[in-house]
Amino acid sequence: MSSNLFSFVAGTAGDWRIARIERVAGGGLPAAERLAVLEGPLEPSAGWHWSLRGFVSNVRYATRAETRELRARQPPLARPSATCAALIPIRKSAQWWELAQDERRAIFEERSRHTAIGLDALPAVARRLHHSRDLGEPFDFLTWFEYAPEHEGTFERLLERLRGSEEWRFVEREVDVRLVR
Amino acid sequence: MSSNLFSFVAGTAGDWRIARIERVAGGGLPAAERLAVLEGPLEPSAGWHWSLRGFVSNVRYATRAETRELRARQPPLARPSATCAALIPIRKSAQWWELAQDERRAIFEERSRHTAIGLDALPAVARRLHHSRDLGEPFDFLTWFEYAPEHEGTFERLLERLRGSEEWRFVEREVDVRLVR
Repeated sequence: MSSNLFSFVAGTAGDWRIARIERVAGGGLPAAERLAVLEGPLEPSAGWHWSLRGFVSNVRYATRAETRELRARQPPLARPSATCAALIPIRKSAQWWELAQDERRAIFEERSRHTAIGLDALPAVARRLHHSRDLGEPFDFLTWFEYAPEHEGTFERLLERLRGSEEWRFVEREVDVRLVR
Repeated sequence: MSSNLFSFVAGTAGDWRIARIERVAGGGLPAAERLAVLEGPLEPSAGWHWSLRGFVSNVRYATRAETRELRARQPPLARPSATCAALIPIRKSAQWWELAQDERRAIFEERSRHTAIGLDALPAVARRLHHSRDLGEPFDFLTWFEYAPEHEGTFERLLERLRGSEEWRFVEREVDVRLVR
């Protein structure tokens, strides 16, 4: 499998302590103590409660201008100061996936300002997007965020703005997993 | 894994007889007698020489107008008259994948007329596109075509036009596998 594949394994082991798991829409996820973020396919091991997989891929909506701005401003993962993290798995509706590329782009950016909202949280919030739908997983996307405790407000505002957008009307399942290192 | 996953297994078994395997660009594929097209992950079995996997996914470039026209005109697979098939695995360059969405769309359609060229071969040539790159496979895409023997000329013209397009300058590996049922 690709080296772009990541597994998020919740159970009794892992670098991250799970502070809370909140169901936002649709079915939630079971409680667990810790989360491990593993590169590559899941290595079966004892003590895990649930696991989710996704791959990092090419950009699907961003234009050259947006990509240039994102790359200039987005911070790397694993900054020592970023001791807070969030894993936000979402699944979009069948209606979303039946839309053509120009229709999805128009909702995603022209009407919902997804990239613009994300840029406003940079460089405070680091982010990595994982695609899951094409693997037959229960969610379509797993987004992983990292930030320092003093930027929690910036992160909450980011989520609030995205959840209030037209794009989010197509989100039929969402779970919010908060973690501390 | 997803039910959208397909495996193409070349060896001594399968519904399709391999008529020829031609290397178009980059490394080729070993000779084999027959090809099986399997739904789901590969079931290991004796007698196979090589196998390729890919998943069917949402459209990545087509607009609503293009999608509507494609859906109205594209025939299903497995027509009794369509006894000829082709499997064409391609890999695009790193330069292609670093392009933003608007840049890839402009090359794919505005400048190379990929969808328009494909529409010209409908309904003679049935087609299914499989995405492989995100699985860490050796190719990025596996396209499967089916047509009746009398439409071979239409199919050759389709390939010729695509291979002459600007988009194909980004294709660094391509193999052309022809099959008969």
